[in-house]
Amino acid sequence: MRRIEIYDTTLRDGAQGEGVSFSAYDKLLLTRRLNELGFDYIEGGYPASNDKDFEYFQKVAQIPLDRSTVVAFGMTRRKGLDVAQDSGIKSLLEAGTKVVTIVGKASAFQAEQVLRTTREENLAMITDTISYIRSQGREVIFDAEHFFDGYKYDSDYALTAVRLAAEAGAKMVVLCDTNGGSMPEEVAEITRKVVELLPVPVGIHCHNDCDVAVANSLAAVDAGASQVQGTINGFGERCGNADLISVIANLRLKKGYEVLTPDALRHLTALSRFVYEMVNMPYRNNQPYVGRSAFAHKGGMHVSGVSRVPQSYEHIDPQLVGNERRILVSELSGRSNIMAATAKLNIQADPKLLERILAKVVAREHAGYQYEAAQGSFDLLVKQCLGTFKPHFERLAYRVNIETESDGRIVTEATVKIRVGNEIRHEVAEGDGPVNALDAAMRKALNGTFPNLAKMHLVDYKVRVINSEAGTAAGVRVMIESRDETDSWGTVGVSENIIEASWIALADSYEYKLCKDEEREQQAREKVENVGASRER
Amino acid sequence: MRRIEIYDTTLRDGAQGEGVSFSAYDKLLLTRRLNELGFDYIEGGYPASNDKDFEYFQKVAQIPLDRSTVVAFGMTRRKGLDVAQDSGIKSLLEAGTKVVTIVGKASAFQAEQVLRTTREENLAMITDTISYIRSQGREVIFDAEHFFDGYKYDSDYALTAVRLAAEAGAKMVVLCDTNGGSMPEEVAEITRKVVELLPVPVGIHCHNDCDVAVANSLAAVDAGASQVQGTINGFGERCGNADLISVIANLRLKKGYEVLTPDALRHLTALSRFVYEMVNMPYRNNQPYVGRSAFAHKGGMHVSGVSRVPQSYEHIDPQLVGNERRILVSELSGRSNIMAATAKLNIQADPKLLERILAKVVAREHAGYQYEAAQGSFDLLVKQCLGTFKPHFERLAYRVNIETESDGRIVTEATVKIRVGNEIRHEVAEGDGPVNALDAAMRKALNGTFPNLAKMHLVDYKVRVINSEAGTAAGVRVMIESRDETDSWGTVGVSENIIEASWIALADSYEYKLCKDEEREQQAREKVENVGASRER
Repeated sequence: MRRIEIYDTTLRDGAQGEGVSFSAYDKLLLTRRLNELGFDYIEGGYPASNDKDFEYFQKVAQIPLDRSTVVAFGMTRRKGLDVAQDSGIKSLLEAGTKVVTIVGKASAFQAEQVLRTTREENLAMITDTISYIRSQGREVIFDAEHFFDGYKYDSDYALTAVRLAAEAGAKMVVLCDTNGGSMPEEVAEITRKVVELLPVPVGIHCHNDCDVAVANSLAAVDAGASQVQGTINGFGERCGNADLISVIANLRLKKGYEVLTPDALRHLTALSRFVYEMVNMPYRNNQPYVGRSAFAHKGGMHVSGVSRVPQSYEHIDPQLVGNERRILVSELSGRSNIMAATAKLNIQADPKLLERILAKVVAREHAGYQYEAAQGSFDLLVKQCLGTFKPHFERLAYRVNIETESDGRIVTEATVKIRVGNEIRHEVAEGDGPVNALDAAMRKALNGTFPNLAKMHLVDYKVRVINSEAGTAAGVRVMIESRDETDSWGTVGVSENIIEASWIALADSYEYKLCKDEEREQQAREKVENVGASRER
Repeated sequence: MRRIEIYDTTLRDGAQGEGVSFSAYDKLLLTRRLNELGFDYIEGGYPASNDKDFEYFQKVAQIPLDRSTVVAFGMTRRKGLDVAQDSGIKSLLEAGTKVVTIVGKASAFQAEQVLRTTREENLAMITDTISYIRSQGREVIFDAEHFFDGYKYDSDYALTAVRLAAEAGAKMVVLCDTNGGSMPEEVAEITRKVVELLPVPVGIHCHNDCDVAVANSLAAVDAGASQVQGTINGFGERCGNADLISVIANLRLKKGYEVLTPDALRHLTALSRFVYEMVNMPYRNNQPYVGRSAFAHKGGMHVSGVSRVPQSYEHIDPQLVGNERRILVSELSGRSNIMAATAKLNIQADPKLLERILAKVVAREHAGYQYEAAQGSFDLLVKQCLGTFKPHFERLAYRVNIETESDGRIVTEATVKIRVGNEIRHEVAEGDGPVNALDAAMRKALNGTFPNLAKMHLVDYKVRVINSEAGTAAGVRVMIESRDETDSWGTVGVSENIIEASWIALADSYEYKLCKDEEREQQAREKVENVGASRER
């Protein structure tokens, strides 16, 4: 089966997405990572548009990259200007990359109405630019902007544009669905025509404005394209570019094409999350293949099926892409869900125990608790039922005070009194709000004994009013998400009082972290002992 | 062009998504909304699985729905059991809907390995169930579960299953890509075969595990399917169902099929956001068609292009789906949205005023405010810009104290000091929580002067953390929904401190009520005067 090149433009097109921005350092980190996984091209930046990119291109030239080729991106020369005088082209060449990608308009409508030039001048802009860059000893990939719309508007002109680009020395022509408005069957048909016409390979670059960018990319490949351009997690302008994670997994696992390195797929989940962390954006839980919910089962029928026969509700083995199965405990739960969730915790499936856990979960859920996004609290609940939970601290009292100062400022102060072992810790802290102040005071009280708590931080919290007909007297459910260097976990608290509900969720988040770290240490110790024991043998 | 039926399963399949859950009240609200827009079927619930659904089905029977048919969902009878004895079937019929959807396995693998029964028994389960339900005077839609995988495993068996279902009386057969692992060309080819074979219409039900659920749904329709099942915003198990928003927009705008009511598309954006608010989940900004970023332009080239020639970077006019263009680097953002919102308030469209309002909204939105579900706060903001807002009270100070008692109980006390006219009111109140206590203290302070406040009460509040990377120090946005005998209105407050954010939203809710009542009185007086004046004439 054919090898399909993967061209990553996360660092350029992806950076045009709202809220996305990369430092030069970020770009270098991601470049290394993509190189390890065998991405064929990395479009590192747009020198004419972004000064910061110059630093990136200088530094990346010094990194040994054995698999990926770094590419600089730029536009065709300006209309009416001599290419050698165009400052944008100068910056592009100064970036010093062996390969350069040039974008030019392949649509007569765009040339005349948007660029406000003649059809002929637009073609000259394309051929002049490519020839010039070739004369400077570089290779050129040509991005045919608005290709599909241009083809529908005037197919001869669009085909002429790409033909001339190839003749001027472009080593590949990439068909761009720039406005993202094309349907898969159109992309397939038009791509096929171009593949038949051109003597150079053809690539595809789709945008997700109609929710079919991945399907469009696959259709183009089946029609003969040999390169797909996109971004990790589908970042990009408007609705984003084609999500390379889905493209890669589909090309290999569904269609049998060769992509990246043989081992790369197992690293997709980690790569996806790495990029989210880098841009400080939350994971998309229902993201195909790599989302936290991608293999999470909730409906009772699904859970009982998948526990016995994974193919019953999973289209692939999650481990192929570095992901894992999760069983969600919820109001649709029954016995199978509890069994499966507890199986993860490596406890015996004792029926009486399961009944006890089930009864507790049902009671808590009636009170407003929800464990689906609160695996941390669920784990602690199971330990309590098992009788193996040893709390690390005991709450004695707390107080939170929020008041306005005479200048209108808000001051929030929390005090906590807890018992840790034989000692009573009594601490006070200020914060931006009540939960922040409580958290700060608790850490003061706990950090001395449990320094590992410094490695965890709270990343999100949600409040949901339950039985809201009671207005402000209704109960609230607070969900907190915490993270350390390796994991993330959710905890939950319910009360009429939002501060009390937050306390419960916070306390669970610390306990989960402390229990988790102790179990890891215990396992590490046992491993050492086992190794020692086998050596002796 | 053909009319394609839209079958919404947000309330059933969508509810199987992680973190998604609907009260019976929520379900009724959404049902009305979908009916207004002309959704053909609404799968309201799964009676055998969820007790809460019974309440929904009872109440929905009393709502006059002129466009949508509400459907109850259930499984085929259990293996080896007489259909009339099956409790799941009983619950299904007790829901009382004219139409029922039955899901049954169309895959020999699933029948033998997962259900652990014989191929023949599985077919009998399908035909017995459908015949029985028909004999009870109901109509049946048959969901052929695992159809595409089943067809690839043993095509004869899969085709037999759906043929027998039609013969047993199913008025439609829906092909389900239950594991979400199929590619568009497979779905097209297989759907075409089924459409040729069956004497009844065929529907399609896709899951998004490969990021192509929308493309799969469109491919099936082009191959002859006449119904698409999915959920609003693509909620659902694992990676979700096909996103009906994208499906609807693509069917109409890209392929020219008839869907919903002629006017429905303009309401898609509002519908999408309504559902996110209902489940208290954040909007997906880069969601195709309706996302806040779907028509947001950031790159300079894009901005200048699209301002002059919208088709340069937009595949459709955003207003067709009720969305708007946003320019992320210019003061032109949101103009059309502001104009539409202020048009509602019957004020003159004075350009300078609009600029002032726009500037204020933009600044507030940067700070985290969102007015989409907070028309009350927006109205007050407009009055402030108009210079017509006269506050009814002035905050001088407040204090909220939450502490644990020695018996573990939580006590919450709030004091407020406000100026009303020439007087200073200083009151204290207890509450179940901080917001409840503040509300109680404020009412003590205001009720003497404004007895009409007793007619309003708060019915819901939602808290969303903004810039959640900062953990517990992040800002919070509090949305409050208030109601009196005739209206309901939303107000919003943003602060690092959840109490302060709640205060702002609360204060707005009182002010809105007081302004509204005064305007009504004013209009009533003017009416009387006019009548008096005409009598005199």
